[in-house]
Amino acid sequence: MTYSIAILGASGYTGAELIRLIAGHPSIEIKALGAFSKAGQTVAQVYPHLRHLDLPPMVPFSDIDWAGIDLCFCALPHKTSQEVISGLPRDLKIVDLSADFRLRDPDEYQKWYGNAHSAVEMQREAVYGLTEFYRDEITNARLVAGTGCNAATGQFALRPLIASGVIDIDEIVLDLKAAVSGAGRALKENLLHAELSEGYHAYALGSTHRHQGEFDQEFSKVAGRDVRIQFQPHLIPANRGILGTAYVRGEALAVHETLVAAYADEVFVEVLPFGEAPSTRHIRGSNFCHIGVAADRLPGRTIVVAALDNLTKGSSGQALQNANLMLGIEETEGLMMAPLFP
Amino acid sequence: MTYSIAILGASGYTGAELIRLIAGHPSIEIKALGAFSKAGQTVAQVYPHLRHLDLPPMVPFSDIDWAGIDLCFCALPHKTSQEVISGLPRDLKIVDLSADFRLRDPDEYQKWYGNAHSAVEMQREAVYGLTEFYRDEITNARLVAGTGCNAATGQFALRPLIASGVIDIDEIVLDLKAAVSGAGRALKENLLHAELSEGYHAYALGSTHRHQGEFDQEFSKVAGRDVRIQFQPHLIPANRGILGTAYVRGEALAVHETLVAAYADEVFVEVLPFGEAPSTRHIRGSNFCHIGVAADRLPGRTIVVAALDNLTKGSSGQALQNANLMLGIEETEGLMMAPLFP
Amino acid sequence: MTYSIAILGASGYTGAELIRLIAGHPSIEIKALGAFSKAGQTVAQVYPHLRHLDLPPMVPFSDIDWAGIDLCFCALPHKTSQEVISGLPRDLKIVDLSADFRLRDPDEYQKWYGNAHSAVEMQREAVYGLTEFYRDEITNARLVAGTGCNAATGQFALRPLIASGVIDIDEIVLDLKAAVSGAGRALKENLLHAELSEGYHAYALGSTHRHQGEFDQEFSKVAGRDVRIQFQPHLIPANRGILGTAYVRGEALAVHETLVAAYADEVFVEVLPFGEAPSTRHIRGSNFCHIGVAADRLPGRTIVVAALDNLTKGSSGQALQNANLMLGIEETEGLMMAPLFP
Amino acid sequence: MTYSIAILGASGYTGAELIRLIAGHPSIEIKALGAFSKAGQTVAQVYPHLRHLDLPPMVPFSDIDWAGIDLCFCALPHKTSQEVISGLPRDLKIVDLSADFRLRDPDEYQKWYGNAHSAVEMQREAVYGLTEFYRDEITNARLVAGTGCNAATGQFALRPLIASGVIDIDEIVLDLKAAVSGAGRALKENLLHAELSEGYHAYALGSTHRHQGEFDQEFSKVAGRDVRIQFQPHLIPANRGILGTAYVRGEALAVHETLVAAYADEVFVEVLPFGEAPSTRHIRGSNFCHIGVAADRLPGRTIVVAALDNLTKGSSGQALQNANLMLGIEETEGLMMAPLFP
Repeated sequence: MTYSIAILGASGYTGAELIRLIAGHPSIEIKALGAFSKAGQTVAQVYPHLRHLDLPPMVPFSDIDWAGIDLCFCALPHKTSQEVISGLPRDLKIVDLSADFRLRDPDEYQKWYGNAHSAVEMQREAVYGLTEFYRDEITNARLVAGTGCNAATGQFALRPLIASGVIDIDEIVLDLKAAVSGAGRALKENLLHAELSEGYHAYALGSTHRHQGEFDQEFSKVAGRDVRIQFQPHLIPANRGILGTAYVRGEALAVHETLVAAYADEVFVEVLPFGEAPSTRHIRGSNFCHIGVAADRLPGRTIVVAALDNLTKGSSGQALQNANLMLGIEETEGLMMAPLFP
Repeated sequence: MTYSIAILGASGYTGAELIRLIAGHPSIEIKALGAFSKAGQTVAQVYPHLRHLDLPPMVPFSDIDWAGIDLCFCALPHKTSQEVISGLPRDLKIVDLSADFRLRDPDEYQKWYGNAHSAVEMQREAVYGLTEFYRDEITNARLVAGTGCNAATGQFALRPLIASGVIDIDEIVLDLKAAVSGAGRALKENLLHAELSEGYHAYALGSTHRHQGEFDQEFSKVAGRDVRIQFQPHLIPANRGILGTAYVRGEALAVHETLVAAYADEVFVEVLPFGEAPSTRHIRGSNFCHIGVAADRLPGRTIVVAALDNLTKGSSGQALQNANLMLGIEETEGLMMAPLFP
Repeated sequence: MTYSIAILGASGYTGAELIRLIAGHPSIEIKALGAFSKAGQTVAQVYPHLRHLDLPPMVPFSDIDWAGIDLCFCALPHKTSQEVISGLPRDLKIVDLSADFRLRDPDEYQKWYGNAHSAVEMQREAVYGLTEFYRDEITNARLVAGTGCNAATGQFALRPLIASGVIDIDEIVLDLKAAVSGAGRALKENLLHAELSEGYHAYALGSTHRHQGEFDQEFSKVAGRDVRIQFQPHLIPANRGILGTAYVRGEALAVHETLVAAYADEVFVEVLPFGEAPSTRHIRGSNFCHIGVAADRLPGRTIVVAALDNLTKGSSGQALQNANLMLGIEETEGLMMAPLFP
Repeated sequence: MTYSIAILGASGYTGAELIRLIAGHPSIEIKALGAFSKAGQTVAQVYPHLRHLDLPPMVPFSDIDWAGIDLCFCALPHKTSQEVISGLPRDLKIVDLSADFRLRDPDEYQKWYGNAHSAVEMQREAVYGLTEFYRDEITNARLVAGTGCNAATGQFALRPLIASGVIDIDEIVLDLKAAVSGAGRALKENLLHAELSEGYHAYALGSTHRHQGEFDQEFSKVAGRDVRIQFQPHLIPANRGILGTAYVRGEALAVHETLVAAYADEVFVEVLPFGEAPSTRHIRGSNFCHIGVAADRLPGRTIVVAALDNLTKGSSGQALQNANLMLGIEETEGLMMAPLFP
């Protein structure tokens, strides 16, 4: 059986990544592509790398005929997403890639994003899209909220550790190194090649990054009490990839065993042999997440490093994985491509 | 039906790229992986990005049982390849990715590679692997010689133009910009990140690059007389991609029409609308080749620019395309993945 | 003796490069810095890499007191420059880094830049700033027009060859590879790290780049008749550097000798031993230009490759070299720093 | 007055950087250049970017006439350095850039470097070369041991904080991001452009990096008792730069004030305004170190980020700064060049 989907916000990086992935999917067909400023153009004009595909043109959202569309991916900017999704048919399955439906608490949303949520009921209804931990809810959900790419990385490294109690949950530092495509196609000086290449730096200093809200919500939920980690992201001169280095208190071997056990049945999350370090070059363009664990020389301290591709496992790959579940398709369908190296 | 293949030289970049591609192929299975110095290791140890695959271990060539193997890919260094291939079973289909069987004339081989050929008869038998121009011969071949990646790029841009007489074949300049993975995994100072990043330069000055031998052979064959182009490659700070800029004498619109017609039925070679420029970012990781044509302001002069991924369409993708033909599989099978952008 | 200068347009890359160079100059002092949108800020805010310097704040142009200022560098966008310069004191020496005063013929200016020139008399008076070829005129000039960075590269490779008649002046192809800082700090999609890194391409297809106007003017002047070269630039994933590969007709040794002789007394232009190729990594951050010459295998054809740093020798370094001459300072003062490698 | 120096190990990156810096120094002259495998070549052959300089040829060490040489820089590999230095004249001032004389305790040396020290007495005599903290000792030293580049970065961020007691010295995590030139010109797979560009990762997992020995020695000395920090380095796709992110326990404003006070009189160490983040792009090619401080949202936790150029302030710039002191030259002479940006 073939399912029909639409993508809103097809002209951003996550939209393009969705098209790339779905182009290789045997049972999903792209029926409509919605765009704002680039409406009226073809995909080949906006994304020449997709010119070999036979795709519908990019149209204004209002031109889309929703009859016959089973699921809609929303790859829109934050805040726009909630407004657009409010106006979609009530029976349409939706995978949202924005931040709009990630946080359950409207106050938390307002705190991190600066505006009141305009679709509070849908916010309550939405399921958090970290597939490996919300598989059943996602399968039955109408609206799934894709996670932040940094948030996904940190949770893959830490969530089983917090759940199991194998580490001290009040002493977690997460130092994250993010490639630039995570910042989107926005025209900002610090994203220019001349500024970023040969220049790297910390940003959102002091745990002020918006994905922190997801850590607060999810880690607290897992622990059954408030958890507040220290989280510091850095911008790295690379296009794809996130590397998260977590400094935790707990026995390294126990940490490793906990992670191995947690992901034993997971196709996309691979825990490396003890002492091995993952690299972003080994997951690029794929839906895999690699996790490495090593003991620090200081007794009781452990390093956990997780690597994933922000556009794939951190965003559009995760979205497709969730869509597969929601549509009753095999979860891994269209997502088993090997990483691109070098 | 499923075919069984072996890869010799599995630990180089083209070997790894073959594994990546075949991993997504529905009717080819990897039965054996041969390696020299890395024999005894697993693929996951040599190439952690392939660790999710269920693959045979890397073994010395002599350990491979050829019974039941339909086709062998040889991704070995030049000169080694001819020695190894001479010792393979006579009925085994072979796709060679080295330079050893590209040139028909043993003297030309010796001139460009510096040593006498040790398998002259096989050299005579081999079919040149530029799929779009040798499709029938490849389909029936036992031994196919993959082209040089630079040679493929130049031929996609120029071959139909030389064949049709739409350009002056004595006045062709090809200025080529090659990413670094084409140089392989060799440990050389000029391939270090610290040397290459922020440093680019011409090499093999004055049409002395070895792929020139392929241009001489193929263009002369097409033209029915000796053709000698000027060919100057440059090393660019990027990992994948080749961009060839050809300066030709001929009417731009006629050049464009000739190329459009030549590739009208080709899936992997796309001629862009007149006046558009291709970019390596739009073909990365894919088996596509994009070609752009524009008129120069000087009457009768035309620019043709071709872009492809040296490891895919320029090497391992081409090899798989040829293997598909040799095994009677649909030519595009396993090769339709979209480029990775950004 | 110390001279006082002002910089208008201090917040662009060429402005910052001027400050970097002048900061190490023993007899020039920065008295005023003029900016548009960033007026009111300190240099340290706009350019944190210059925070150790004791510099005047960035002010609107109208706030600058010109009394006591000997020379003004204008690092403004094209078109803006002619308007601003028209309003400056008549006795102020000016080095303009924009394109506004490079072309002598108002029609040519309009043809390449699309608007009528608003300061035609000054345009006529301006001296073309290619120091090595206009040294005397620059020494006595009031207004010097800095060259295009691509134009400088091509002229260093070709000018002595056109002047001497050692090559066929109707058969010149210049294939140029430019790093991204030459495009300035403009916010454009194709200058983003995610688009440019791992993506390179030709632009201004078919000799339509604006610097072509400079080649037309200067090469025709040198030859005493119209000269029209073919010039095709490409954008390369690097921050600094231009590499120009010229394909010429002429004997390689004679070409080499001509260049060696032409630059024998020049400090900043180095002709490499015959057959050696220059690299952008060897001139980065310096005022040097390296030129290599090699014979092609085709008789009578020669490759000339020139490399320079677009922001230094191609722009701000050239500007300072000219200012030194105009102020009666040793020409090389402040410009002898070695390139930064790696 | 002019001083004469020699450089041993002139063909590595730190040797080349020394030449670059000294080329602009008004009172130091390079009298001899010693090399191993590249002896017999000119500097222009080994480092074409230095071809404009008038330098002595590279010779075997034994060919150097030490009479008339005031100071020798040793930019040799670890272990080689101690052997070579043992054989140098006893009255020669020496600045060593290797790791051989950094650790005072021979057992610590053996623990981190794996071999017994062969010049234990000189090891005892050597002064640790972190200029800002050993200024007097260096001024009077005969043998100064340059610090590790990572070690320098960490100490600039942390040393005044440990000394002042403003942070908890048992709770320090240092997550460091190092550009690739710090690994030298060694031919290793993971330093190839194709491997490193678009690939970054942690190495020396779990505080096993050799520079850890310097932290142990120096921080313990400052604190008056054993201090063991957690230190995890990462390799980043950039050529120059180190960014160290320190996670400390202490009040952010007090931390900032302590650093501001500690470096108030230092020319090369700049503490940014509270809350600002340094970037490697702002110190590249210079002798400056930028330090930023911000409060974490968790009470009592603070982020300190330090950025410097590993080849300049982290190695050869530091070495020249120390040589200036040892020769009685102004400390900043030859070191005030502005960073190269972009």
